[in-house]
Amino acid sequence: MTKSMYELAKELFPICRSLTGEGNRQTLRILQREIPELNIHEVPSGTDVFDWTIPAEWNIEDAYVENEAGVRVIDFKKTNLSVVGYSYPMDEWMELDELKKIVFTLEEQPDVIPYVTSYYNPRSGFCMSYNELNKLPQGRYHAVIKSKFIEDGSLTYGDVIIPGETEDEIFFSTYICHPSMCNDQLSGPVMLAALIEYIRGLKHRHYTYRITFAPETIGAIAYLSENLQHMKAHVKAGYNVACVGDDRTYTYLASRYGNTLADKLAVNVLKFHYPGFKSCDFMKRGSDERQYCAPGVDIPLASIARSKFHDYPEYHTSADNLDCISQKGLEGALDVYKQIVDAMEYNWYYQVTTICEPRLGKRGLYPTVSKKGVYDEIQSMINLIAYADGTNDLIDISNIIDVPIKELIPIVEKLEENGLIKRTSTNI
Amino acid sequence: MTKSMYELAKELFPICRSLTGEGNRQTLRILQREIPELNIHEVPSGTDVFDWTIPAEWNIEDAYVENEAGVRVIDFKKTNLSVVGYSYPMDEWMELDELKKIVFTLEEQPDVIPYVTSYYNPRSGFCMSYNELNKLPQGRYHAVIKSKFIEDGSLTYGDVIIPGETEDEIFFSTYICHPSMCNDQLSGPVMLAALIEYIRGLKHRHYTYRITFAPETIGAIAYLSENLQHMKAHVKAGYNVACVGDDRTYTYLASRYGNTLADKLAVNVLKFHYPGFKSCDFMKRGSDERQYCAPGVDIPLASIARSKFHDYPEYHTSADNLDCISQKGLEGALDVYKQIVDAMEYNWYYQVTTICEPRLGKRGLYPTVSKKGVYDEIQSMINLIAYADGTNDLIDISNIIDVPIKELIPIVEKLEENGLIKRTSTNI
Amino acid sequence: MTKSMYELAKELFPICRSLTGEGNRQTLRILQREIPELNIHEVPSGTDVFDWTIPAEWNIEDAYVENEAGVRVIDFKKTNLSVVGYSYPMDEWMELDELKKIVFTLEEQPDVIPYVTSYYNPRSGFCMSYNELNKLPQGRYHAVIKSKFIEDGSLTYGDVIIPGETEDEIFFSTYICHPSMCNDQLSGPVMLAALIEYIRGLKHRHYTYRITFAPETIGAIAYLSENLQHMKAHVKAGYNVACVGDDRTYTYLASRYGNTLADKLAVNVLKFHYPGFKSCDFMKRGSDERQYCAPGVDIPLASIARSKFHDYPEYHTSADNLDCISQKGLEGALDVYKQIVDAMEYNWYYQVTTICEPRLGKRGLYPTVSKKGVYDEIQSMINLIAYADGTNDLIDISNIIDVPIKELIPIVEKLEENGLIKRTSTNI
Repeated sequence: MTKSMYELAKELFPICRSLTGEGNRQTLRILQREIPELNIHEVPSGTDVFDWTIPAEWNIEDAYVENEAGVRVIDFKKTNLSVVGYSYPMDEWMELDELKKIVFTLEEQPDVIPYVTSYYNPRSGFCMSYNELNKLPQGRYHAVIKSKFIEDGSLTYGDVIIPGETEDEIFFSTYICHPSMCNDQLSGPVMLAALIEYIRGLKHRHYTYRITFAPETIGAIAYLSENLQHMKAHVKAGYNVACVGDDRTYTYLASRYGNTLADKLAVNVLKFHYPGFKSCDFMKRGSDERQYCAPGVDIPLASIARSKFHDYPEYHTSADNLDCISQKGLEGALDVYKQIVDAMEYNWYYQVTTICEPRLGKRGLYPTVSKKGVYDEIQSMINLIAYADGTNDLIDISNIIDVPIKELIPIVEKLEENGLIKRTSTNI
Repeated sequence: MTKSMYELAKELFPICRSLTGEGNRQTLRILQREIPELNIHEVPSGTDVFDWTIPAEWNIEDAYVENEAGVRVIDFKKTNLSVVGYSYPMDEWMELDELKKIVFTLEEQPDVIPYVTSYYNPRSGFCMSYNELNKLPQGRYHAVIKSKFIEDGSLTYGDVIIPGETEDEIFFSTYICHPSMCNDQLSGPVMLAALIEYIRGLKHRHYTYRITFAPETIGAIAYLSENLQHMKAHVKAGYNVACVGDDRTYTYLASRYGNTLADKLAVNVLKFHYPGFKSCDFMKRGSDERQYCAPGVDIPLASIARSKFHDYPEYHTSADNLDCISQKGLEGALDVYKQIVDAMEYNWYYQVTTICEPRLGKRGLYPTVSKKGVYDEIQSMINLIAYADGTNDLIDISNIIDVPIKELIPIVEKLEENGLIKRTSTNI
Repeated sequence: MTKSMYELAKELFPICRSLTGEGNRQTLRILQREIPELNIHEVPSGTDVFDWTIPAEWNIEDAYVENEAGVRVIDFKKTNLSVVGYSYPMDEWMELDELKKIVFTLEEQPDVIPYVTSYYNPRSGFCMSYNELNKLPQGRYHAVIKSKFIEDGSLTYGDVIIPGETEDEIFFSTYICHPSMCNDQLSGPVMLAALIEYIRGLKHRHYTYRITFAPETIGAIAYLSENLQHMKAHVKAGYNVACVGDDRTYTYLASRYGNTLADKLAVNVLKFHYPGFKSCDFMKRGSDERQYCAPGVDIPLASIARSKFHDYPEYHTSADNLDCISQKGLEGALDVYKQIVDAMEYNWYYQVTTICEPRLGKRGLYPTVSKKGVYDEIQSMINLIAYADGTNDLIDISNIIDVPIKELIPIVEKLEENGLIKRTSTNI
């Protein structure tokens, strides 16, 4: 990467993203600079994707409300959260009372601008902090939205394929449809950019990696409408990557039944990485797991976030800004996702090659004096061997013997070198 | 019904019921007035029913103990609990010491008359409160029991069949063999009379409903000896209905393994209706679930009671009288059983008809502005759809998404109307 | 037995046992006096047993460290823990500093001599209490070990086969390789001697009993190398018997997955015998369960101990002496293992022979008056019948109805006599 994750988020912050439009293309082109493998795709407006239809492309040039003195009291140029996403164009003078009907505020958090969209219903609207709105004096106001709907436009998304030794895939998904917000928008793409760099550098890559950057919901549905059969056949584990930039906690969000390989691995990695992590069932979903885990889709996909959407006060407001995330927060999430990748690459079923315990001593793997205390030091190796009975993958072994996979990987390598364990199959 | 459940219990209260006899016929005839579908059956004394034999019919005209002055100190006419059930006739003068040998009391509850029977062992006896017995002065007493055993008599029971669209059955069982007691006797028959009225009025009735009113144990065994094969083939869920008239708590009593559809539904309904309900395993059984859930019978039957037999102080004493139950208590139980019936009628496996989430908005089922807070309102519908994957019945969905079935039924109807879910099979 | 378990331990205490050698033979010959069925076997040094090789036989005549005045400051004749097991012979004068390099102590327990061995690495060493070592004045010391390695020697073990009606086996294993220690050495062999006496006296013996007395690890591996296929085919439950002599607690140590018949029975017996028993998973293993439960061996074997190895302060020190165990402690363990044997002999799947509950009264098995309180008395019988449905073995029934197997055995006998239950199969 040419810059840190945080600096990349800073660069992407001002862009006005939505379901469609130039902001999304601009975002993907910046990401493409960091991720050369990134392919950018367009899906024409009007295309039917399962139960949905790709909407007209929406672009916006400016939006504001000015008072009779020509002073802007709401200004899209200052923050693109000021306008309701997918607003229709307008140019109208009105009294304060009229204005209030088209301005959304958030009374419970009176100092922040809420994030509001109206994708599938014709509407023009603004967003403002509750306190600012209430400070406006009576008078006439000029409400202007310079937006444009392009019926023969398209929806834009990006994807990356990093081939491995097999067609079996690990899948990561993130979205690119929120305007200027950080934890719930930019953290996902920038962390994935860094993770892709890591994956690219792996010496051995059993799995092929698929990473998507698409608008939430309609983008994921569009992507699935093009790739469902392939993904159902090949994706062994997937993660929806969102809200990975703050530094408060870690959150696991389960798949529909919490019983996929992706779930099992996420829980394993998190319980060692951050034992107090929050665990949410599928009732708490809200991002593209809604599509990837839908009945009939059934991609084995879970989510690992820092403070998950809905669960932090800045969520979907102007407070989810560059102060809400940090390089440290992003690096914490990146570390977890690297562990996920490493664990997947080593997650085979292992089988010990001896009957009874092997004699580690003759291979230089055992201390030569048996004495109280010394024994504990090679306990992980002995325990790994005890459960390398062909019925456990490495995650199972880690769970049973209560040792993180990252500590087991060097032991696995040593035992394989000595011919004491062998892989019986992948985890499938 | 011509009167409330409570008023019906009041009418039935004075009748002396037992395993057999006129009191049982009189009870069933009164119930027949309220339940025109009720059929009354007789099983001749001496009939072998599995390991048991129908006993001689027992009738009793009067019983008392009078002192030398001719004053009745025990009087069957005042309460039929005064005589041990199935007592042999007697007419004997005796000293107080002799009398005490044939009078049962309950020292722990010294003011109440215990309920005692001696069905299968020849015996004559009386019941009295411990305090009253101890007040009796020395002297001679005249103990009289005017009972009669009819060797060619019969055992009497009633049943009701309300046909549905299929031969699959929902089964309710209650007993009619206890004399003047309310929660542990009359509550079951009167509540079932009201439930039958409700079932009769259902617009759609997928299931056939079978309801029995029989003496406990021997009556259930007799009923099974006549209906076992049919019931094994057709009963999908059943409930033994007893002790449903007080207003203190709710109790779930499990089937032998607690794993039948009847158990699953009972727990689901109760956890929403009365979260603090008591849950008992089969060790706590004591009524006809002993037969219906016996090995080789294996009817899928659980029980939902208010204060269950053995679990309330008035149980099997003269204190289980008309003060122990109330119309409100009966209505609470009736509400639960109505929910059971409604849930069974809607308890199919459902399958969503779209791939990915359906677009609810285009069917008018989704709010048009996405804003913090609004989202929760249709969460139940979205969650129901997420788990309508053909592997869950409606009870499963209710448990997973934590919404009562009674709230899901209107959503199911709406989704079915919109063609978004379809039934894949019944719950079998 | 010619003497109590404790007295037998006292007789065996002074002998110097190890992986091999005369001390082991002497130990087995004393046991043979108490257990006539005991067979003594020799496995030649150099024999390959799976991944291991039988080591040269080790014998030791004397070992000591004397000061310049010829006073022994370490003396094997006083306690055989003074020398590191499998020490090479030596005869050398050295300064105190040199001496300290070959003397092992235990600083955390400064008054006891630690138990140290060096089986597979050439070494000569002594053991001493930390405090004693630190009292030694500067000066020259004479370190002498009169040990001998016999390359064409052998490893010695004993086993006992007590035939039953079938070839199905119950297996008990203990070890004989520790020098003068009691809970972690002598308790196992002496308690098994008493258990064998009990098994010999059983009227009916469905199972064949196999009991081994072998050096830990290499002895068990040697035994398995000779008997693996037979044992895999026939052993239905086994127990490694170690540390059964103190009187502080009871400990259950699980098999690899804790899911064998041996585990199920151990937990059942202990939960009634000593509800506060300690439960350890296979991570806490340390004796021959390491071999018997290894992948590919998979003998269904658990352990029941009093204070388990590693879990009591005297473990592997000179404090694990005759004060650490007691006849009472040994008898507690013996009682548990007798219950294990009895339960196995009765552990069939039972099937009630009637449909609905049987009428116990006509067989004299039920009280003739039904009255509050009386009912509880035969509850165990009724509950046993309810779960005698052919899907539960006696352990399952005991667990479900919460009654110890030793109380169920007489009920089983009574019900079998009355033809009310029958055995459907063994527990296999």
